[in-house]
Amino acid sequence: MTYLSKITSPTLLIDEKKCRANIKRMADKAARHEMKLAPHWKTAQSRIIGTWAKDFGIKELTASSIKMAAYLCGQGWDNIHIAFPFNSLEINKLNELAKNQILSVQLINPITTQKLVDQLTEKVGFFIEIDAGYGRTGVKVSDFGLIEEILRTAKKSDKLYFKGFYIHAGHSYYKPDIPELYEQTRNALGMLKAKYRSEYPHLVTRTGDTPGCAVMEDFGDIDEMGPGNFVFFDLMQAKLGGCSKEEIAVALAVPVVDINKERKEVLVHGGGVHLAKDVLKEPDGTNNFGEVVQLEESGWKISEPSERSYLKSISQEHGIIKASESFLQKVKIGDVIGILPVHSCMTADAMASYLSLDGQTIDHAEGVS
Amino acid sequence: MTYLSKITSPTLLIDEKKCRANIKRMADKAARHEMKLAPHWKTAQSRIIGTWAKDFGIKELTASSIKMAAYLCGQGWDNIHIAFPFNSLEINKLNELAKNQILSVQLINPITTQKLVDQLTEKVGFFIEIDAGYGRTGVKVSDFGLIEEILRTAKKSDKLYFKGFYIHAGHSYYKPDIPELYEQTRNALGMLKAKYRSEYPHLVTRTGDTPGCAVMEDFGDIDEMGPGNFVFFDLMQAKLGGCSKEEIAVALAVPVVDINKERKEVLVHGGGVHLAKDVLKEPDGTNNFGEVVQLEESGWKISEPSERSYLKSISQEHGIIKASESFLQKVKIGDVIGILPVHSCMTADAMASYLSLDGQTIDHAEGVS
Repeated sequence: MTYLSKITSPTLLIDEKKCRANIKRMADKAARHEMKLAPHWKTAQSRIIGTWAKDFGIKELTASSIKMAAYLCGQGWDNIHIAFPFNSLEINKLNELAKNQILSVQLINPITTQKLVDQLTEKVGFFIEIDAGYGRTGVKVSDFGLIEEILRTAKKSDKLYFKGFYIHAGHSYYKPDIPELYEQTRNALGMLKAKYRSEYPHLVTRTGDTPGCAVMEDFGDIDEMGPGNFVFFDLMQAKLGGCSKEEIAVALAVPVVDINKERKEVLVHGGGVHLAKDVLKEPDGTNNFGEVVQLEESGWKISEPSERSYLKSISQEHGIIKASESFLQKVKIGDVIGILPVHSCMTADAMASYLSLDGQTIDHAEGVS
Repeated sequence: MTYLSKITSPTLLIDEKKCRANIKRMADKAARHEMKLAPHWKTAQSRIIGTWAKDFGIKELTASSIKMAAYLCGQGWDNIHIAFPFNSLEINKLNELAKNQILSVQLINPITTQKLVDQLTEKVGFFIEIDAGYGRTGVKVSDFGLIEEILRTAKKSDKLYFKGFYIHAGHSYYKPDIPELYEQTRNALGMLKAKYRSEYPHLVTRTGDTPGCAVMEDFGDIDEMGPGNFVFFDLMQAKLGGCSKEEIAVALAVPVVDINKERKEVLVHGGGVHLAKDVLKEPDGTNNFGEVVQLEESGWKISEPSERSYLKSISQEHGIIKASESFLQKVKIGDVIGILPVHSCMTADAMASYLSLDGQTIDHAEGVS
């Protein structure tokens, strides 16, 4: 009995070998640059996959919410960093978790900092998040007034301790010139370290996006990296050059429910509630919500570029594949095929569990009540 | 203690009064047209909300997957219709559920029909789905050869019985001319009923989209309607004219984590994993992922058009609000504000539970392991 015989409905497959190879490659890269790797677990969100990471020497994880951090607590991590501007309504929860797990948070304003000063009952570290330049979140790198107000406020507490500066260069997902973006990140973090090191000799700097961490080789004196997506990769990363399609470690298995030879379309049970709705554009302007792979006993096989089929549209549960001739010739109603996701973090969050190629269920935080 | 004091992280609020009023309005409309209303529970996905529907005489639900149908089984429904081209890999599951619950499925090809003929052990009804003209799924209305092949195949089984024809005019979401689309739906279903009624005197016709069911008054001789979204409505429906913003019955409560007065932006904990990524375009071309409402003891208050604020961008957990002057003046870090969703079905699926305004947790199929 193979994993394939277990699938009757949309199921997220994970190829453990590919996933481990992805983790190893980034761990090796971090080691080569003498950087600490604290992977962002917003992608995998799994305790079992956490044990795989430990096999490559990883000792710290990053989470994007306190809920996710709570799920990862108590699993032997040296630290869990919550890389989201701290939500002051969750101080009680933070105090509770911090009793048994070393945690750090991210701060970008003195108001939330003051609330922590007033209400923290346990020791908690913090990074100051610096705006990477695309205006999502963080303190402007040149706003020393604000940085120092946060630091001054935090000093009033014996619970809150400064760890360093964090930049998530998330615009690397949208802009082609990663080296140029990275120069900004390196310069910003380098300048801040030089400026504040005398007062905080142990401060570290951290950067966080997968495209940058996958592509770059010059990290300057940045101390730590916290990419997330690299654990699985996806079509978006392949397009950005951070991975090959062969390295993508997850695929959504979907049942084929109808075939329209005339329109060269295949209807599958697999839509927005499974894949999420992230989309790439094909050269001809059509949408691509995921790419067809052939499922086999030992994993999945990627088509030759000339025989590529992809999801051209999705609704809540439906997916319509634009089928190549060769795919159309062999596909049958009742088959199960694979779809490489455009954005694996969102697909994993939507599916909330994984099936390994040896038929084991792998946990995901969202699938556990 | 109000519902507000329970919220520390993204939480989907439901206003029971609005939800009941939406159900009542559609039930009244169906009654006025002597149609059966079998609402599509892909939106609410809740047993408790099912009990509200029963208060308005609703006796049948529609589901979009066998998993969702399984969740709704055993709650006293006369029938649960699975309005998705049947996935033949789930026949065992169908047989199991059909022992204790009357079910119907949707068929669009003779191959799946034959598999049911071969493997069904319980009685199950079926609709033939007709392509509404936008090519997502279904048999072409003029393809009598295919319709009759499905009917002939089904006749070989004493378990599989024909109920009628179903059209989901889902393109009403994207095209402005709903009356014209509805004329096509009415004509198609009317023609099919006339043609096959002599052989199947009990056959019924059903149509399924919320924009059409909300806006139209002329349903011709269509017998049944199965809209889903109307139970909650959302910004997309408001834009299409199917509802007012005041009638939207769900709002995502999100904590405010930062305010940037200079850029007139408010950062909230609320992103793609909470709202999903459906988007509307503002007149100036910017994205709108949801609209800010003010949360109060008794529910939420919608801003005047001139004071409107909306989510201009989201990532996995972050949401950035483009804030109006008046909102910017009163909002504080640590506040909880509401966001009306663009597409409530997807938001409800992502959140997987609701909090009522009297502080009760309301179930959602995805939140139950």
